[in-house]
Amino acid sequence: MKNIFLALVHYPVLRDGSVITSSLTNLDIHDISRVSSTYGLGGYFIVHPDEKMRTIANKLAGHWVSGEGKVQNPDRSKALEILHIVRSLEDVVEHIEKISGMKPLIIGTSARKRDKTITIKALKNKKNLPALILFGTAGGIDDKLLDSLDYCLEPIDTGSGYNHLSVRSAVSIFIDRLFMSD
Amino acid sequence: MKNIFLALVHYPVLRDGSVITSSLTNLDIHDISRVSSTYGLGGYFIVHPDEKMRTIANKLAGHWVSGEGKVQNPDRSKALEILHIVRSLEDVVEHIEKISGMKPLIIGTSARKRDKTITIKALKNKKNLPALILFGTAGGIDDKLLDSLDYCLEPIDTGSGYNHLSVRSAVSIFIDRLFMSD
Repeated sequence: MKNIFLALVHYPVLRDGSVITSSLTNLDIHDISRVSSTYGLGGYFIVHPDEKMRTIANKLAGHWVSGEGKVQNPDRSKALEILHIVRSLEDVVEHIEKISGMKPLIIGTSARKRDKTITIKALKNKKNLPALILFGTAGGIDDKLLDSLDYCLEPIDTGSGYNHLSVRSAVSIFIDRLFMSD
Repeated sequence: MKNIFLALVHYPVLRDGSVITSSLTNLDIHDISRVSSTYGLGGYFIVHPDEKMRTIANKLAGHWVSGEGKVQNPDRSKALEILHIVRSLEDVVEHIEKISGMKPLIIGTSARKRDKTITIKALKNKKNLPALILFGTAGGIDDKLLDSLDYCLEPIDTGSGYNHLSVRSAVSIFIDRLFMSD
């Protein structure tokens, strides 16, 4: 799935209904890099507007890519080669355009059903186009950003009445569903 | 999926080919409780032989269930109601027997293909029986324990040549596949 790219968004995201910039979570770096490598994605982007947070993310990832962590855990090092830590969504799109020669479809995710919903199967059918899927940290991506995107993926709905997955679980499930769909 | 139970095993698990007891990871408590609640499972058990680790796990979970975290994040509190922190697999089985009135099938997971493999679909077809699925921390569950179980779930194989998912991702994907299978 080389034409699928992921971005983890730290701004603008929601907390208690307000737009915030969320902090970095260490396991978001590793878990999502490992999913992206396992499913052969085109790239995984951590997007954070704060330079200090990007520096921390680079240090944490660097420990495994070129530091002593590489000796201790070479599998983790390999997974992190797929990771790019960038300032903005514009940077992500520019990077994908350079690789793919065209602008990607940009697709949001949300725990709530949105307009412009696309099913996993319909997205899979667009396989000739690069697709960038955005995942939000904290309480999810702000509505204004979601409204500005090409599509929004159908939410994971199990019918249990409880629907509060971690972003690490949501990424894993969406990417596996994309991989498994015909 | 009330008849599906999960257990996260910290002993006996592998690291560099040796059997070890792994440490607790905070996000294993939250992420897997949230998956278990979202998919309506019967229960999620963190199994650790070390009393101090169980005390820490209980404190971390308790912050969200009855501490100030409950006020701050009631959704997380609800997810953790599904969690039990216990000493051994025997304790898990005893608990399930009390609820279900019968012994569960015990099913291992591994990144490597094993004997006695069961597919997701075949497991789903046994839906009248309670099933306990074991997930290993660190480098996965030790072979001797795997060999002693009823079945082992077919590994997640994407054909990418890289197959090193975090246990949080593996749990999310297996449970979603169970939910999605006919």
